[in-house]
Amino acid sequence: MNLGATQTIAEPAVSGERMHQFIAELYPICRSITGDGVRTTLRRIQKEIPIVVKEIPSGTPVFDWIVPREWNIRDAYIKDSRGERIVDFQKSNLHVLNYSMPFRGKMRLRDLRPHLFTLPDRPDWIPYRTSYYRENWGFCLSQRQLDRMTDEEYDVCIDSTLEDGCLTYGELFLPGESLDEVLFSSHVCHPSLCNDNLSGVVTMAFLAQHIQSKTRRYSYRFLFIPGTIGAITWLAKNEASTRRIRHGLVLAGVGDRCPLAYKKSRRGDTEIDHAVAHVLHHSGREFRVTDFSPYGYDERQFCSPGFNLAVGRLSRSPHGEFPEYHTSGDNLEFVTPASLAETLSICLKIVELLERNLTYVGTNPKCEPQLGKRGLYSAIGGLVDAGQKELAMLWTLNMSDGQHSLLNIAERSGLAFETIHQVAHLLVDHGLLQEAGAASHVNSN
Amino acid sequence: MNLGATQTIAEPAVSGERMHQFIAELYPICRSITGDGVRTTLRRIQKEIPIVVKEIPSGTPVFDWIVPREWNIRDAYIKDSRGERIVDFQKSNLHVLNYSMPFRGKMRLRDLRPHLFTLPDRPDWIPYRTSYYRENWGFCLSQRQLDRMTDEEYDVCIDSTLEDGCLTYGELFLPGESLDEVLFSSHVCHPSLCNDNLSGVVTMAFLAQHIQSKTRRYSYRFLFIPGTIGAITWLAKNEASTRRIRHGLVLAGVGDRCPLAYKKSRRGDTEIDHAVAHVLHHSGREFRVTDFSPYGYDERQFCSPGFNLAVGRLSRSPHGEFPEYHTSGDNLEFVTPASLAETLSICLKIVELLERNLTYVGTNPKCEPQLGKRGLYSAIGGLVDAGQKELAMLWTLNMSDGQHSLLNIAERSGLAFETIHQVAHLLVDHGLLQEAGAASHVNSN
Amino acid sequence: MNLGATQTIAEPAVSGERMHQFIAELYPICRSITGDGVRTTLRRIQKEIPIVVKEIPSGTPVFDWIVPREWNIRDAYIKDSRGERIVDFQKSNLHVLNYSMPFRGKMRLRDLRPHLFTLPDRPDWIPYRTSYYRENWGFCLSQRQLDRMTDEEYDVCIDSTLEDGCLTYGELFLPGESLDEVLFSSHVCHPSLCNDNLSGVVTMAFLAQHIQSKTRRYSYRFLFIPGTIGAITWLAKNEASTRRIRHGLVLAGVGDRCPLAYKKSRRGDTEIDHAVAHVLHHSGREFRVTDFSPYGYDERQFCSPGFNLAVGRLSRSPHGEFPEYHTSGDNLEFVTPASLAETLSICLKIVELLERNLTYVGTNPKCEPQLGKRGLYSAIGGLVDAGQKELAMLWTLNMSDGQHSLLNIAERSGLAFETIHQVAHLLVDHGLLQEAGAASHVNSN
Repeated sequence: MNLGATQTIAEPAVSGERMHQFIAELYPICRSITGDGVRTTLRRIQKEIPIVVKEIPSGTPVFDWIVPREWNIRDAYIKDSRGERIVDFQKSNLHVLNYSMPFRGKMRLRDLRPHLFTLPDRPDWIPYRTSYYRENWGFCLSQRQLDRMTDEEYDVCIDSTLEDGCLTYGELFLPGESLDEVLFSSHVCHPSLCNDNLSGVVTMAFLAQHIQSKTRRYSYRFLFIPGTIGAITWLAKNEASTRRIRHGLVLAGVGDRCPLAYKKSRRGDTEIDHAVAHVLHHSGREFRVTDFSPYGYDERQFCSPGFNLAVGRLSRSPHGEFPEYHTSGDNLEFVTPASLAETLSICLKIVELLERNLTYVGTNPKCEPQLGKRGLYSAIGGLVDAGQKELAMLWTLNMSDGQHSLLNIAERSGLAFETIHQVAHLLVDHGLLQEAGAASHVNSN
Repeated sequence: MNLGATQTIAEPAVSGERMHQFIAELYPICRSITGDGVRTTLRRIQKEIPIVVKEIPSGTPVFDWIVPREWNIRDAYIKDSRGERIVDFQKSNLHVLNYSMPFRGKMRLRDLRPHLFTLPDRPDWIPYRTSYYRENWGFCLSQRQLDRMTDEEYDVCIDSTLEDGCLTYGELFLPGESLDEVLFSSHVCHPSLCNDNLSGVVTMAFLAQHIQSKTRRYSYRFLFIPGTIGAITWLAKNEASTRRIRHGLVLAGVGDRCPLAYKKSRRGDTEIDHAVAHVLHHSGREFRVTDFSPYGYDERQFCSPGFNLAVGRLSRSPHGEFPEYHTSGDNLEFVTPASLAETLSICLKIVELLERNLTYVGTNPKCEPQLGKRGLYSAIGGLVDAGQKELAMLWTLNMSDGQHSLLNIAERSGLAFETIHQVAHLLVDHGLLQEAGAASHVNSN
Repeated sequence: MNLGATQTIAEPAVSGERMHQFIAELYPICRSITGDGVRTTLRRIQKEIPIVVKEIPSGTPVFDWIVPREWNIRDAYIKDSRGERIVDFQKSNLHVLNYSMPFRGKMRLRDLRPHLFTLPDRPDWIPYRTSYYRENWGFCLSQRQLDRMTDEEYDVCIDSTLEDGCLTYGELFLPGESLDEVLFSSHVCHPSLCNDNLSGVVTMAFLAQHIQSKTRRYSYRFLFIPGTIGAITWLAKNEASTRRIRHGLVLAGVGDRCPLAYKKSRRGDTEIDHAVAHVLHHSGREFRVTDFSPYGYDERQFCSPGFNLAVGRLSRSPHGEFPEYHTSGDNLEFVTPASLAETLSICLKIVELLERNLTYVGTNPKCEPQLGKRGLYSAIGGLVDAGQKELAMLWTLNMSDGQHSLLNIAERSGLAFETIHQVAHLLVDHGLLQEAGAASHVNSN
């Protein structure tokens, strides 16, 4: 099937459960911005789609940054005086301050205390904390665990390594008829957190799977990258090819029960901004559209002033504003098959819209063409209702002057893009429209 | 009187009754897009204003269309088994499906049924239906008439002809000081329907009568044309002269009791759009202004992308959204003398505004000129209220930089155009303003 | 202290009383558009700030106007038949129609009556009226005074002179690093009226006092000028230097109890328009912003089309819309120390903002710079709240592309200018930003 064709991509209703299962498989892996966690995750994704795994050596300068050392961890615990693991990395990888230096020793509680992070307001949840760019070690634990720590001394172990190695990311490029690209990007660096961002990773994998089986106008690039440093590394290593990115979308936090939320690109008025808003508006579901801000996920890098790409972000719960954010509460129950399926469906509709959003010129720009003689218009005149389809034809003919894309026409008419697209095909079939670029000698007054 | 002068055109209060009487005269004529009905109508209009009647032969190609054969009808009926005319063209020309092929014969009810059109929801009204571009015949009747048809067989007659002939339209051109034109257009093809569009036809005739007696800056063109095919034919035959159309207004459905409604041109920001909105806003009456859409009357053709003229439409009840639309309910009671008079008055004010909407430059652009020494300013200073007139002078002087027309100034100041226009004349008389085009050496900083 | 530095100018809380005392000193002086009243006022101001007093001879042509004769007055009264002064210039200089010709004689009441001005609706107040540009004489008195005038004949004296002399104004120019100027202007021509405009005169004097003690980027010009003719005279005599005026503010009626109101420049979208609106918005106090209109104070001249300067106006009660306007009710009770202090404080913040509103370019426009390694970012990642300061840094880095001033960034981010300005300094200190003009080879994609 051709993405630009008139048939609609089937609703991926059954995908929700499969997406959730995929999240469940990836959930236990201890990921970080570097190390084997990401490698294991990417290998698992490779079973679904043929991503290429790239390794960038530690120490590589990438703009203002340097690719950091590689972090790997095998075990970590705090043992009490009875030798029992009261905080255990094997039970949850969130227990370790991500990127902790190796450490081993006996410590008095008061010395250990500055290395312990809890959430007093959510006493059952483990926070997720990191220390990427300052050497440190620590444990994240529930407030209840901390409250039970009454011994004077503890046996502490973090069996990690922080050594020269690589930053690892996955990339899938699906060439299309044009070298112009649509970019999708998800951060893949968070450990056992489901919504943030296994939801984005898995949605993108399923999305890529759908797209790769279709012929397509655009080329598509999917980045499974560590947040911030991964995006910066990719941009530094692929600066020239960013010029081909026409539209882009960061997927992050797209599995929870909140309505979908689109955050506009820095430019704020690009085709992707209009496309996502249109698809959400016509989805019949609640949604939010917010302006760009330079805080959030990797749209920060794609929309830095030196790139200023047409990249927005699709999410659900507002970034950082829900209690489960960066805690063990962001678990398998926090993301739902229905939300995942809906996100995938919306992404497919966005892709469909971008693929189909061509600009046409009418072959009869002067006065309306006679639709009736082509069987395109009701034979009996004088009726009250011209019908949505006839109205869509009139809008498409009237606005197709080479200056308005089908999405522009949909927006101005208030009709669904799909309706406009369908009648545009019909009008092309009847020789009444042709693609704007293809029209060599359009007669315009 | 000069249209551009300071005196206001007298309110045509007495015209309402005369306009309604004119509609009553034209009401019984069976018009269609071609044929003697339009000719008879135009001849009657010629008694009021010197329109030229144009005949365009059947078969003439006009853009994507071809001028159709000419339709004429003498009689039509359905007789029951007792020989009684139970549906009779002589009682209402709406009874015939407009443009019906000739037909004669005895028919069983079940065979006749597909040729009968009714309005089940409005059982006393006859619908108005047409079949211009597909050969067909039929009758429109009230649901009550249909309900009474219990005979098995009926005697059916449509004594019409559909033969090569002409499409007929009327045109009046009133030359002005400039070749730049203001276009008015009304469709003249509907049979016994009063609001749609004898109201437009008659308003335009009275409007032309007023304008022809005045000296004027613009040239004026009035088109009494069959809907769609008439507008297309005129545009095809007069393509070159469309470049001179600066402003235009389609008049359609302007006689009912609804407030006036203006539908903007496709460009949406032209002088006519601002002018009509301003006049309606300052009329003190309820009104609506809506965006362009490519459905409606002949603005569809004037605003097709190959022409994209600055032509809007003045109407009352929303097109197609009132129950009487295209039924026998659109009768002499549906249109009122008061509404017709108001429409004419508003049209005259629009014309007046266009005539008077010049752009000036101040002769003293640096600081305010001294109004007091010219007797233009209150002699006693310090008063609370500078007065509307002094305020209007200040606005006109301040904004007359060659970039703002008087209408722009009226809009920005919130004052009535008439006030701005009056003080502009006063300021010209005192040498403080001159027309922008006339100012050869304006000193601008 | 440097106006562009990061410290905020201290709230001039103590100034309110001193400003009010200064108004009280200037209150009794009988000012007009020319004459000794203005001279005396300017001499008193010279004790505070080193204004230069300029004298422009009567008869000097200034654009469309001519500098009028100089008016001076020593005494004026109406005596009743018992020889008692029932209207006495010595009690209030408002009693004389400002600019009255000399007159002396006995008059019958009915002949005197056309020369008497009262406010019937406010029977205790004396109106303020002028007759600058038509030779006349008269008295302004309370309605109660008029009601008591029952004698047949009165002894009338206006001991004034109207002779060739000068128009006098005061000017203070404070040079800055740049020749680009910020203009402040207040009319100094009104006699015993406090809000209109001793409030503006005194605020401007205190403002100038603050600014002259600081190093500054802009040059500042303060005009203490007679309304209308003074502004016109200054503009005529200083036409060339108006090109250097980047921002300007007319101060008029800034001492009463109403919230501050900003009237935009004619251009409506200039830096001063945004700056004042931003400062008022972030003041936490009620305020109004209105569009330009060509009625009001000397913004009328600065914003005449031949100049069209970026000059707005700061006021409180709407011009001409409060009962005390141009009456003896505009007295020392009508203006308050608190309002005067607040106006001064707001003016200082506006100046501060203009001084500090630079445009920067990031030195690392591609991706975010690494704030963490510079100690500018929280060491522990994953926290919910990035903090206002980090958010302000991200906004400033993201938007500093040479196209957006700090004020633009503050407006887009919704953060206070002060916050943006502070982090901009921090980012400059860390080499992450440089001034846009200073960046010779900015790498932009």
